[in-house]
Amino acid sequence: MDPPSERPGRGRFITLEGGEGAGKSTQVHILAGALRRRGLSVVTTREPGGAPAAEEIRALLVGGAVHRWSAMTETLLHYAARREHLDATILPMLAAGAWVICDRFADSTTAYQGYGHGLGRDAVRALHDLVVGAIRPDLTLILDIPVEEGLARACRRASDRVGAAGSEDRYERMDRAFHERVRHGFLAIAEGEPERCIVVDANRPPDRVAAELERCVLARLTRDAP
Amino acid sequence: MDPPSERPGRGRFITLEGGEGAGKSTQVHILAGALRRRGLSVVTTREPGGAPAAEEIRALLVGGAVHRWSAMTETLLHYAARREHLDATILPMLAAGAWVICDRFADSTTAYQGYGHGLGRDAVRALHDLVVGAIRPDLTLILDIPVEEGLARACRRASDRVGAAGSEDRYERMDRAFHERVRHGFLAIAEGEPERCIVVDANRPPDRVAAELERCVLARLTRDAP
Repeated sequence: MDPPSERPGRGRFITLEGGEGAGKSTQVHILAGALRRRGLSVVTTREPGGAPAAEEIRALLVGGAVHRWSAMTETLLHYAARREHLDATILPMLAAGAWVICDRFADSTTAYQGYGHGLGRDAVRALHDLVVGAIRPDLTLILDIPVEEGLARACRRASDRVGAAGSEDRYERMDRAFHERVRHGFLAIAEGEPERCIVVDANRPPDRVAAELERCVLARLTRDAP
Repeated sequence: MDPPSERPGRGRFITLEGGEGAGKSTQVHILAGALRRRGLSVVTTREPGGAPAAEEIRALLVGGAVHRWSAMTETLLHYAARREHLDATILPMLAAGAWVICDRFADSTTAYQGYGHGLGRDAVRALHDLVVGAIRPDLTLILDIPVEEGLARACRRASDRVGAAGSEDRYERMDRAFHERVRHGFLAIAEGEPERCIVVDANRPPDRVAAELERCVLARLTRDAP
């Protein structure tokens, strides 16, 4: 595959979304490797965070007491970090022609704060329009997994890292019903924007998920290439 | 003076605004004492901060490198802290019948980020409507002082606290033109909302400023009282 040429000088923006334990960070890593082997310039990043200023805000979001923020405050903090992430990392990298693969982006705020915490999709959308405007991923891959299975995976991962500094499990510790609402939120987003989103069954061995993600990316983002 | 009775069960929300070195925190303290001597239940608070969660966000805003945040990010962080402050402190205290005197509130964001950093008043207003809605102070006292005099005062205050932990002078370190835009912003806000705002000349001895502030509060907030 050649790098797509219809938008010279601009890379592609791919986001991976999904609930806890869906395997996003593993798949970001595998997908980046696959695209690099095809000669593309790829950078991987994550939210919340992905830029020095945004990582400072991340520290407020991913640790500490489960109910330390109201839904609105949490949403504002996510968007503050997102704006820094866009300005310092995502937009400069896209302008330089890189393919940017991001572990979580705005759909996570819609799913977690809008659906999970009940802030509502409209409030998140209003904030999104104000802060992010028309910028959107070229492709969003939503890794779908039953809540019980995802939380069990996240739990095994947490026990593997016991002793590591700085536990980042605040969202994992929210209750089961919360995670069901989050999953429903992601599926509703995908249903509403089929031209941007693809739902992938993540309840399979990682190599099979990886193969499907790579197929999706090639089919969607290179179809206009020569 | 009796406590006003036309809104039983609800206190009054008074904000003090102004640039660096205008004497806001001193005047908040003096005004609170004067109102307490009149038998009112008064709480004083400040922004950014004023609630445990909001103080955590404050730490990101008041220290560190001058240009550590973009104007939009900074505005989002201020509103995140403000939402927590409203929910945890201001609204419960007002509902309990207290008079709440706050050292800075939303007008500071309009003046500092909207005017000073050039984000624009409309962007701040859109965020305000989303996050704060119709809540507004009953009275806002804008302490006006020439920029040069205010910065000189702030500088003397800073030299008094040398050696104290945690310097909170990030805004003071912004350039002179920034502070001129902030002052202009506060005056523009006051001009646009004369029913809420009173501009007070703060370039006078503190006791004279205090006497005028007390007169303003009594005239505006007790005129409907029996």
